[in-house]
Amino acid sequence: MFESAEIGHVIDKDTFEAEVPALREALLEAQFELQQQGRFPVIVLINGIEGAGKGETVKLLNEWMDPRLIEVRTFDQQTDEELARPPAWRYWRMLPAKGRMGIFFGNWYSQMLQGRVHGEIKDPRLDQAIAGAERLEKMLCDEGALIFKFWFHLSKKQMKARLKGLKDDPLHSWRISPLDWQQSQTYDKFVKYGERVLRRTSRDYAPWHVIEGMDSCYRSLTVGRILLDGLRQALDRSKIKPQKVNVAPLPALDGQITLLDSLDMTRRLDKADYEEQLITEQARFAGLLRDKRMRQHALVAVFEGNDAAGKGGAIRRVAAALDPRQYSIVPIAAPTEEERAHPYMWRFWRHIPARGKFTMFDRSWYGRVLVERVEGFCSQADWLRAYGEINDFEEQIADAGVVVVKFWLAIDKETQLERFQEREEIPFKRFKITEDDWRNRDKWDAYRAAVCDMVDRTSTEISPWTLVEANDKRWARVKVLRTLNQALEAAFERTAKQARKKKR
Amino acid sequence: MFESAEIGHVIDKDTFEAEVPALREALLEAQFELQQQGRFPVIVLINGIEGAGKGETVKLLNEWMDPRLIEVRTFDQQTDEELARPPAWRYWRMLPAKGRMGIFFGNWYSQMLQGRVHGEIKDPRLDQAIAGAERLEKMLCDEGALIFKFWFHLSKKQMKARLKGLKDDPLHSWRISPLDWQQSQTYDKFVKYGERVLRRTSRDYAPWHVIEGMDSCYRSLTVGRILLDGLRQALDRSKIKPQKVNVAPLPALDGQITLLDSLDMTRRLDKADYEEQLITEQARFAGLLRDKRMRQHALVAVFEGNDAAGKGGAIRRVAAALDPRQYSIVPIAAPTEEERAHPYMWRFWRHIPARGKFTMFDRSWYGRVLVERVEGFCSQADWLRAYGEINDFEEQIADAGVVVVKFWLAIDKETQLERFQEREEIPFKRFKITEDDWRNRDKWDAYRAAVCDMVDRTSTEISPWTLVEANDKRWARVKVLRTLNQALEAAFERTAKQARKKKR
Repeated sequence: MFESAEIGHVIDKDTFEAEVPALREALLEAQFELQQQGRFPVIVLINGIEGAGKGETVKLLNEWMDPRLIEVRTFDQQTDEELARPPAWRYWRMLPAKGRMGIFFGNWYSQMLQGRVHGEIKDPRLDQAIAGAERLEKMLCDEGALIFKFWFHLSKKQMKARLKGLKDDPLHSWRISPLDWQQSQTYDKFVKYGERVLRRTSRDYAPWHVIEGMDSCYRSLTVGRILLDGLRQALDRSKIKPQKVNVAPLPALDGQITLLDSLDMTRRLDKADYEEQLITEQARFAGLLRDKRMRQHALVAVFEGNDAAGKGGAIRRVAAALDPRQYSIVPIAAPTEEERAHPYMWRFWRHIPARGKFTMFDRSWYGRVLVERVEGFCSQADWLRAYGEINDFEEQIADAGVVVVKFWLAIDKETQLERFQEREEIPFKRFKITEDDWRNRDKWDAYRAAVCDMVDRTSTEISPWTLVEANDKRWARVKVLRTLNQALEAAFERTAKQARKKKR
Repeated sequence: MFESAEIGHVIDKDTFEAEVPALREALLEAQFELQQQGRFPVIVLINGIEGAGKGETVKLLNEWMDPRLIEVRTFDQQTDEELARPPAWRYWRMLPAKGRMGIFFGNWYSQMLQGRVHGEIKDPRLDQAIAGAERLEKMLCDEGALIFKFWFHLSKKQMKARLKGLKDDPLHSWRISPLDWQQSQTYDKFVKYGERVLRRTSRDYAPWHVIEGMDSCYRSLTVGRILLDGLRQALDRSKIKPQKVNVAPLPALDGQITLLDSLDMTRRLDKADYEEQLITEQARFAGLLRDKRMRQHALVAVFEGNDAAGKGGAIRRVAAALDPRQYSIVPIAAPTEEERAHPYMWRFWRHIPARGKFTMFDRSWYGRVLVERVEGFCSQADWLRAYGEINDFEEQIADAGVVVVKFWLAIDKETQLERFQEREEIPFKRFKITEDDWRNRDKWDAYRAAVCDMVDRTSTEISPWTLVEANDKRWARVKVLRTLNQALEAAFERTAKQARKKKR
């Protein structure tokens, strides 16, 4: 895999200087078109052997191109902000928007390679990390991103020679110090595991390019040409969405009973019970959020439901238990321009709370498989794909200690009609009802099918759905609070158990 | 994920009987069309809880449909044949051809689930198996296969009730006996790990369908409907090949030096040296193949090279060292009809040698990235995808102890011309030269680029390419034999080292 990058590729200075002006011009033009089209982001991953010219090459690219359209990201030590969140968060927040180019130094590959080379993880964990990287890149490509993966290579002999010259340069002591690399063991391991990583993750949609790093003219020109070829090809291609040949569709419900039908919609609480239980659960909740065990967790509550099912009221009752500094509410509506310029899940990743924090999503990432599916705002391929991406997302945040509680507030069709009419009659409620609401109501059955598929495909042990019978608002609000409390207590218990296990 | 399959779905006998005739007819028709079109195979994976009606449902499907077009495969204990080969071999050889339907009981998912439930593997290994399954299914779908994945489910209570009735039925004592399932721990673990597997592998191109198994009318009708919907949709879809929006192309070589250029083509052996070295290496090779350490390995040698580079002659010199019962030679030409009806890699999987055996491939799976790429016999998407699939394939067989040695026999353009002319002049060699050879020669540069990309992307630690300077046939033959010997010795040494490590 690295043989070609050890044979001593050289481009002489004259050839280099003769070719650079045209290449620069073409790259600048491509960059400009990329911005104009605004159709996809470009992600450039920089990995490889220390001393192989990674930094110099990127520096040169920035000189050749318009640096205002390039974001160079270095992922060094994790910041406090990053340490408090799931590992992938640091990459998500740095993703370039459509029309822009992001160069990632020290990306997910560096992390897994460092871990394996230094023996912090073994092969099975490395393979888990590799599978995670594959999923992430597949998703980014499915969302249209153009990914370049460069591995800068040197033979062992070349590397030793280069390091001699570089070891006093502070720019090159990042992560693995040159001193460390001087040991041939480090080189051998890095190349060995590097090959495993490249072999597994060089896929048709995002292949690796191995660049021999010895000669600066060669490596710069080669990287420049590959970038230009790839950019041009992507820019010139028409906007065909990939279409899968053979996918079994989800089965139609055909009047079968569903989880929604199995709900007992007559559940209710009288006023006295409600007030007592609400206060109890609110107090319990406030206590749990202040509990010191909360420092190892974060809490995310997702509120989805029929129009007029009482999401807002439920959220207010949860919030009422807390100091406003303890939580944040993220209302999800149509995406902003900035959000549209990123992969779908980006707008949610940016709101993932830090450890100890609590975020309520008023509508959420499930929009893709609900409103976007029903209204045809995205293709079938997109929403079918979303189930897997959502499960991956929730698994990643759950692994980092985030407790995810998801509510579907369900009302029946009659109750909705009553509430709509009430809203139209009561002046201060009139802002809450629009033509859209009536239109959505016409698609009641389509939404019902979407909800059932959603629950079937995304209610998981790590993040189950809670269906809330919401014809009675009191019942619904208490159930929401109680579920949150139970979820937190269960999470605290699980963590304590794991800690006890570790001690033994 | 399983909630919907625990709410007690029932379809009454009358509804069932009223609907079955039309469903059967439609299924038969779809089956017939599937065969007529012969465009894609259908793979049905059957998994889930013991006692949930997996067997009965498949039995019924066979009654409803034309069983001549359905292959039901049960993967029980591995046979001797299977144990002697890489784990995936048993599935590959059972893959249905295009136009046919294969129902796989006890497939790759059963294996990983059993292993995890019984504690033979831990989570990281389970995740490795999951990633392997994802790769396999992605590849099958990319090659056009339609995959249905059914999980038959029962709640714990339902399962216990069913098992009571079933425990004396020998049909249901397969793998996990009902007695084992009576322990609620088995159920809990199976569901827990089942959910992890479903969550990770339910992808847009091959989603899982969870079927509640309690009521036989419900489960049969539901499975039948899903199959019909999926079949119809795939049959009616026009033959659009999926096209990736954004893939960076491989860089053009543009006169850069390559591995091929770095070969010293003047290498040669005089007759006396040749004869001595050839005999030495042949004897060494014969000894190694008879060595008892060979029982843990198999040997695969791949011969690729320029036309007239001397593949046949080299293969003959290797074979000459052996008893004809010790090896087999697989010449790869244009695919047969049967081979065309399967995924590309199928034709090679079927020839993977059992442990202790040796197979030489005269041309190989690299045809896709060489002749098929250059001649346009497959799409760019196909050959770009092939690098990853080939690496996966070689990794799987290497993990099972197969030593893979790959030769590219390289000659220069002048030597080829001389040999072509010689072939035309010498009567008994005339059959070896065709118009095709001359045509290929015109594409010398395109082949050269394809070879370089191939070596760069598939020469790996576990299965490196050996470039053979073949202008001198003597030199080439000795180098081939010596490389085989070194590869076997290194493999024996590695295995011994691992055994020592294990002992400690």
